[in-house]
Amino acid sequence: MVRTQITLVQIDNYGPWTVTPEPRCEADLQTLQAQLYVDLVQLVGSQSGYLFYTRFDNMIGLTNGLDRDDHTRIQDSVRNRYPISVSMSVATAQTPKEALSIATDGLQKTGSAQDETRRSVLYSEVIDTDERTADDVEIAHFDVIDATRQYTDELDAFDAFLRIMRGYLLLAEYLYDNHAALTFFIGGDNMITVSPDLGEEVYQRTINHVDETVGIPLQVGIGQGPTARRAGMAAKHALETCRQHDTRVEEAAANHDGTTSN
Amino acid sequence: MVRTQITLVQIDNYGPWTVTPEPRCEADLQTLQAQLYVDLVQLVGSQSGYLFYTRFDNMIGLTNGLDRDDHTRIQDSVRNRYPISVSMSVATAQTPKEALSIATDGLQKTGSAQDETRRSVLYSEVIDTDERTADDVEIAHFDVIDATRQYTDELDAFDAFLRIMRGYLLLAEYLYDNHAALTFFIGGDNMITVSPDLGEEVYQRTINHVDETVGIPLQVGIGQGPTARRAGMAAKHALETCRQHDTRVEEAAANHDGTTSN
Amino acid sequence: MVRTQITLVQIDNYGPWTVTPEPRCEADLQTLQAQLYVDLVQLVGSQSGYLFYTRFDNMIGLTNGLDRDDHTRIQDSVRNRYPISVSMSVATAQTPKEALSIATDGLQKTGSAQDETRRSVLYSEVIDTDERTADDVEIAHFDVIDATRQYTDELDAFDAFLRIMRGYLLLAEYLYDNHAALTFFIGGDNMITVSPDLGEEVYQRTINHVDETVGIPLQVGIGQGPTARRAGMAAKHALETCRQHDTRVEEAAANHDGTTSN
Amino acid sequence: MVRTQITLVQIDNYGPWTVTPEPRCEADLQTLQAQLYVDLVQLVGSQSGYLFYTRFDNMIGLTNGLDRDDHTRIQDSVRNRYPISVSMSVATAQTPKEALSIATDGLQKTGSAQDETRRSVLYSEVIDTDERTADDVEIAHFDVIDATRQYTDELDAFDAFLRIMRGYLLLAEYLYDNHAALTFFIGGDNMITVSPDLGEEVYQRTINHVDETVGIPLQVGIGQGPTARRAGMAAKHALETCRQHDTRVEEAAANHDGTTSN
Repeated sequence: MVRTQITLVQIDNYGPWTVTPEPRCEADLQTLQAQLYVDLVQLVGSQSGYLFYTRFDNMIGLTNGLDRDDHTRIQDSVRNRYPISVSMSVATAQTPKEALSIATDGLQKTGSAQDETRRSVLYSEVIDTDERTADDVEIAHFDVIDATRQYTDELDAFDAFLRIMRGYLLLAEYLYDNHAALTFFIGGDNMITVSPDLGEEVYQRTINHVDETVGIPLQVGIGQGPTARRAGMAAKHALETCRQHDTRVEEAAANHDGTTSN
Repeated sequence: MVRTQITLVQIDNYGPWTVTPEPRCEADLQTLQAQLYVDLVQLVGSQSGYLFYTRFDNMIGLTNGLDRDDHTRIQDSVRNRYPISVSMSVATAQTPKEALSIATDGLQKTGSAQDETRRSVLYSEVIDTDERTADDVEIAHFDVIDATRQYTDELDAFDAFLRIMRGYLLLAEYLYDNHAALTFFIGGDNMITVSPDLGEEVYQRTINHVDETVGIPLQVGIGQGPTARRAGMAAKHALETCRQHDTRVEEAAANHDGTTSN
Repeated sequence: MVRTQITLVQIDNYGPWTVTPEPRCEADLQTLQAQLYVDLVQLVGSQSGYLFYTRFDNMIGLTNGLDRDDHTRIQDSVRNRYPISVSMSVATAQTPKEALSIATDGLQKTGSAQDETRRSVLYSEVIDTDERTADDVEIAHFDVIDATRQYTDELDAFDAFLRIMRGYLLLAEYLYDNHAALTFFIGGDNMITVSPDLGEEVYQRTINHVDETVGIPLQVGIGQGPTARRAGMAAKHALETCRQHDTRVEEAAANHDGTTSN
Repeated sequence: MVRTQITLVQIDNYGPWTVTPEPRCEADLQTLQAQLYVDLVQLVGSQSGYLFYTRFDNMIGLTNGLDRDDHTRIQDSVRNRYPISVSMSVATAQTPKEALSIATDGLQKTGSAQDETRRSVLYSEVIDTDERTADDVEIAHFDVIDATRQYTDELDAFDAFLRIMRGYLLLAEYLYDNHAALTFFIGGDNMITVSPDLGEEVYQRTINHVDETVGIPLQVGIGQGPTARRAGMAAKHALETCRQHDTRVEEAAANHDGTTSN
């Protein structure tokens, strides 16, 4: 049974900071945001979690396996190395959507994203270690069939980008509205969905919907595991099976993630 | 008169590399991509250019002021520090769309994005120094009116994200299709358009279109300058005027960018 | 009883790589080396270990608490993100000197640092989890008394640097030759010694020796703990006591490290 | 004629910050310092300068070719991305020692390194563009003959490190005291000297002195150029000649730096 632990990361009072006392250099802001993402994705990743950049000032993590102390340390690290601080909110539920909703709610109650006095708040409801199971996390890894030949090598680079974004946005909206799942664009033509336990049929219908609506043909590998890393790696291997066998949806066998540790 | 110099940056043979010999750890790939963006945005930025992450394996730069040698050095730096290399293509035209189209074409002619033998190619048509003018670049900087109160502090974090993405995608498509401009999401609720010389009225119509179609209220500051940095800083100051005067569209006076150098 | 786990990290075949096919840009090499250190110090640090940059192409870690899998993951991360790979060798002994000697020996047996075929070797003898104790690690944190007033604000910056280096080198040689300890310069006027269980008297004699020989007055805080992080934090708090009470040597009370986790 | 432009970079009030309100996590401080070095070495390097980490809280740059605006931008970038700020002082003289002495003096006059109110000070005396010449900079690049076979593959890693440090410190002291040059350890077994115009004989005597005193056999390549990058690259090529011809001292022919730009 899937029990997703989601972490919402929010830079404290970021908007006002970017224009005080004067608007700051955009290249510096881009560097700051992306560097923060680099550091957090590494720190979360070293504990087998995933982090998605989303809006950069609001990032969303899949953090099964990280406890309250792990989150505190990451916050301390940010405060020790950046001119800004981050608040975090962690929650768990059977669907990623619900977990994020609880996490968002927990954070909003502590104050506004632009509250000058809110600094490094941590609201957390992590899963107890002894309640964790081997299939707490489900991840689906999508990519666009033949994207390099059909888009990158063929279209104007912005046109190619817009088409992939259109496919991504539709996919994300469909899975969020109908299946309480959270979908993230992760670069190239790749998208990752953090899902409740959905089953191959749902993914097949989803792919059909995207193809019919915006003409973007997707394939998907699905994996489960105790952590984002293991579920994600299983999903990647399943996606490789799609590529080899020319299929559209593949689910990894249980505990077949190609790795030996968490 | 606007003469936009656009650089297309493409990681060579990236897709195959990410799954050879086995799929690589996603946290590492995210770190690699974002770190590459951090380094390139700094290097391009140190010469007063802008770089946008777009698909991460394909990035788009606004590079007025960088010459062929500057590009070569950045490529060398990537080759010296990363397990991958990047090809680049630089072109100039009166509209950003046309410049990117020429740049894409130039790169595609040198080989596929997944050509195993294509490494660090550079196709370049940079603007001669003595042909550069004080208003070669026009930048529009948008944000969502009252985004923190209406979205971040109010909605579920993913719902807020999806709405902003929906607004962004519509804005980008509209300006690309109708005005040959390139629009990038740069984090939070901010978007930057690299435009030909458009005029306030076009921006007003654009904002109306986005508001009427998806209900996202935008405001925009417009700036011009010899480089991305100066045009962008002028646009930011103009956007501050929107915020202070509660207006929707503001254009910076000529050469009023709040900075003293390029 | 102290049982130090030391990790030797060595970039594979680095020297030849830096000049093939031509000497590479020094700024790029400096960036590469320091970035590698940044990443490794974060990854080792997220598991409560310390890493010292030493020669940059050979780094030394204090890694009590990291197991074989943790090391493997760090190696994978380097291979996924850098143009070079690192070999590692882990060993444990009652003195840091002996542990490093075993680790060095283990690595040398797998091939030369400039062996073209040696890639990402891992030789490891980590401490079993159930054999770990609360005082496996001892750290001494030194700084120069009144360094800012006497050196930084008074001398030419290079002169100040040379004096501190002279003090550091003497300290490192003395503690290595006489007490089987490893001492690292960590920036500013700070030095950290990874020691066997030495006792305050030894540190007092050491400080006297450095002061008499090169005229650099040191103070030191000593801490113990199950990991580098906890021992190191205890040592820092003890050094604060020196600063407040104007004493030269302070040892933290057992388990008084100012933190609550490992 | 050599005219060295030296920049002293100093983190403002760093020591007190590292222990306020409590001592900060050492892994975070190491990450912060090294990341700052990574960023500054890239930014200085993108303008063809060199930066050396020295004490990390005090860094020394060879900055011929960077003007006052370049320095200001780097300071802004630090302030926009770090929890600390840096002050800088730039000076020019016929010897590096004198330039650094003037720069240090200029900075000390603005306040103490631990002055709470001193923030991002910039004292600068840069070389006018029209006074720059093709041989303003001289760099000597040293390494230890046969270091891998004699040290890295043979000795305990710390013993090897101490020997190289001993050689480095002697070299640095000798060249500073006798020839007004600044010498930096740059990793592995490599050292770079920023020198006035010295001539091969001086380098030969220097090498003999180090070999006779501490038994470390060095070889050296010497290069000149308008910037650190070009002089440094010429020196590297000259050092390659040493390696190929088994000689101890080689000087690059004028303007033979293997590159085509500055």
